[in-house]
Amino acid sequence: MPFENEFIIHDVKYFQPDGKVAEGNIFIQGDKISRITPPSNISEMQSANVIDGRGKFATPGLINTHTHASMTLLRSYADDLALMDWLNDHIWPIEAKMKRKDIYFGAALAAVEMIKCGTTAFMDMYGPCMEEVAKVVEESGMRGALCRGIIGIFDGDEKLQTNVDLFKNFNGAANGRIKVMFGPHAIYTCPPDFLRKICETAGSLGAEIHMHMNETLDEINGCMKDYGKRPFEVVAETGLLDLGFLAAHCVHLSDNEIEIMKAKKVRVAHNPTSNMKLASGIAPVDKMLKAGLTVGIGTDGASSNNNLDMLEETRLAALLAKINTMSPLTLPADTALKMATEEGAKAINFDYKVGRLEVGYKADITLWDMRGVEWQPNYNPVSLLIYSAISSSADTVIVDGKILMQNRELKTLDEEKIIHEFNACADRLTGKS
Amino acid sequence: MPFENEFIIHDVKYFQPDGKVAEGNIFIQGDKISRITPPSNISEMQSANVIDGRGKFATPGLINTHTHASMTLLRSYADDLALMDWLNDHIWPIEAKMKRKDIYFGAALAAVEMIKCGTTAFMDMYGPCMEEVAKVVEESGMRGALCRGIIGIFDGDEKLQTNVDLFKNFNGAANGRIKVMFGPHAIYTCPPDFLRKICETAGSLGAEIHMHMNETLDEINGCMKDYGKRPFEVVAETGLLDLGFLAAHCVHLSDNEIEIMKAKKVRVAHNPTSNMKLASGIAPVDKMLKAGLTVGIGTDGASSNNNLDMLEETRLAALLAKINTMSPLTLPADTALKMATEEGAKAINFDYKVGRLEVGYKADITLWDMRGVEWQPNYNPVSLLIYSAISSSADTVIVDGKILMQNRELKTLDEEKIIHEFNACADRLTGKS
Repeated sequence: MPFENEFIIHDVKYFQPDGKVAEGNIFIQGDKISRITPPSNISEMQSANVIDGRGKFATPGLINTHTHASMTLLRSYADDLALMDWLNDHIWPIEAKMKRKDIYFGAALAAVEMIKCGTTAFMDMYGPCMEEVAKVVEESGMRGALCRGIIGIFDGDEKLQTNVDLFKNFNGAANGRIKVMFGPHAIYTCPPDFLRKICETAGSLGAEIHMHMNETLDEINGCMKDYGKRPFEVVAETGLLDLGFLAAHCVHLSDNEIEIMKAKKVRVAHNPTSNMKLASGIAPVDKMLKAGLTVGIGTDGASSNNNLDMLEETRLAALLAKINTMSPLTLPADTALKMATEEGAKAINFDYKVGRLEVGYKADITLWDMRGVEWQPNYNPVSLLIYSAISSSADTVIVDGKILMQNRELKTLDEEKIIHEFNACADRLTGKS
Repeated sequence: MPFENEFIIHDVKYFQPDGKVAEGNIFIQGDKISRITPPSNISEMQSANVIDGRGKFATPGLINTHTHASMTLLRSYADDLALMDWLNDHIWPIEAKMKRKDIYFGAALAAVEMIKCGTTAFMDMYGPCMEEVAKVVEESGMRGALCRGIIGIFDGDEKLQTNVDLFKNFNGAANGRIKVMFGPHAIYTCPPDFLRKICETAGSLGAEIHMHMNETLDEINGCMKDYGKRPFEVVAETGLLDLGFLAAHCVHLSDNEIEIMKAKKVRVAHNPTSNMKLASGIAPVDKMLKAGLTVGIGTDGASSNNNLDMLEETRLAALLAKINTMSPLTLPADTALKMATEEGAKAINFDYKVGRLEVGYKADITLWDMRGVEWQPNYNPVSLLIYSAISSSADTVIVDGKILMQNRELKTLDEEKIIHEFNACADRLTGKS
């Protein structure tokens, strides 16, 4: 019999920390997994505290380690353009018009989308009003790590201060579901002196860093020209890497930079779709994994992806690593699923246990419905999830022991209202209304 | 007012042959598009002959130019293995056990899956009992081009004869929806003399050819060793390219081979997922398109993909071409969608007009539901479909003027029964029952 307030997912196939699949009953008490027992005849139990896990596959919730949630407002607004045309003529003029309400509804739509794709946590970097994204994390029930994207070359100090305020007001908020980091945008927008300033400020608060690193060849070349060194070499000297550092992209890396990342325990957010769509390059994921680095997966923002579908992203990570190494053995399905879950949690470095289906870990769980045609025949759920399933198989999403979606119905967010308000924002920004 | 037996998709956004999106009413009479008119106030018309197109995006049905439908039975049965281990120890032993019923239910499940992803036509190559696949095409209402995969080095003549029988019995069947081609498997399984024999036989019947070409470096190296020439050079000398030739894969091509393909009007089925998953290489799609070749998109079989999701495949084609050329301008969304539709139709070379939403063309249409969160904001349906949408957005599928799916409900196939029977087949083959 379950304890009071305990609920059970019974007779469910689940992804074990060892990469294998077992069947059993997962018990959740409060915000944690409290017990996992072998499958038994509790399937007849019909209380409100039971989720029937038969025909479903339980995995840790997917963790999106790099996105810009509110950029959903710019989804497919300007595709198939050269990078600088895209930024100068399309993205930046719209972003300059964004108001508090836009940031909120952009992030709210992102939360709807992420939950519906089986995602339970995300790392977000964006402009002003990040407290609106914090509000969305709080209301949605998701787990979120947030930082202000600080472009140092314009009003850097002011932006740094908003990141400080964000940290003071929201780090540890929402029952600990919110973590705040500092977000120097990139080496080409933050000179080393300014990075040192961020380091000092973040360091004094005990905050970690999230930053775009080594994304394009232009970035590397510019950095070599300006500083005579590569980005990780420059950033290492500012002290930032010592604070705990999550680096997005990491496409072009020298061997020395990988050594630096290893020594400094830099964690990586790999963004395959964005790297392909913007033709940035192919990140050396296999090499990073072999170096023992923690590599999570991220979608990047919806203007360069163009969705926030972590399942698709994980598949692409597995496929891209194979073609990059010309070996079908690279990045097998179980490794890919671990990157999207446990390694993603390590990449964000929440200060509690999350990302495994194991007793004592946070109850952040996605149940995938395996009845769909693309799950047949149903022998190997891990392989089917990574190589075949569509993200709309995400049936139930649980975070911190709370159900955010069940039978694909959202429990914490009003999808219809959010889509309506979001579109009003988008129309105003783009001048369509 | 509609003519008798005419039905209308009213007030729908649709993909025009010029790559742009317009809004209007698409009239269908018999198996063809009979009229397209500007949007008008026929939305109030509530007859049985009306489909409400509001909130939907109409495209030509997606065309899968290379698959092995019945290999759904082997989906995720053996992943993340080296090619020869995979074939010798896993795939071939199971295939040797396949019976007529397996071929039928494997293909039936594939048809369910393809229709649910918005696919209306497919090119299939597989082993014995291809008449079972023909039956599935007939019953499902899909359009299908079929060939016997002929491995010449074992019982080649017998297999060639089954392809002859297939042609005689099914070419032009199912109201013309079935086309039969000849399917020499590959240069490493069909020596030139045998290819000449196939050429003679197929040529005498006026049949075209579908063949795996230049898929892996091993294939190229083996061909160079055996014949001192590259695969397209060898095959050109057998006469096969003159019959009308659809080449699958085409990953590793010399400039001379591209010249040969151009001269012989070889059509290409590009299979990005399979090429990535098996680490075959990246096909030079941009180069082929610039050479003026017809390039369609195909999923390959479900044992190397592992789904038959043409929307995902088309997205991957667009992304992979960008990273391969290191330009975000390569293969934009409208080109990708054309490859998946009109160019796919040209690749298979049906002897009637199909693949465009234009008067006189076959009414092969997919309606995509744009209400989902990943379609917001809804400014550019082409970009949204290619870069953001999930294939479960496929709402309605029409082939030859007949509705195969509406509101995601299949009209011609019994999904539940097929999944059940299919799994019984898979269990028997793999010894799970």
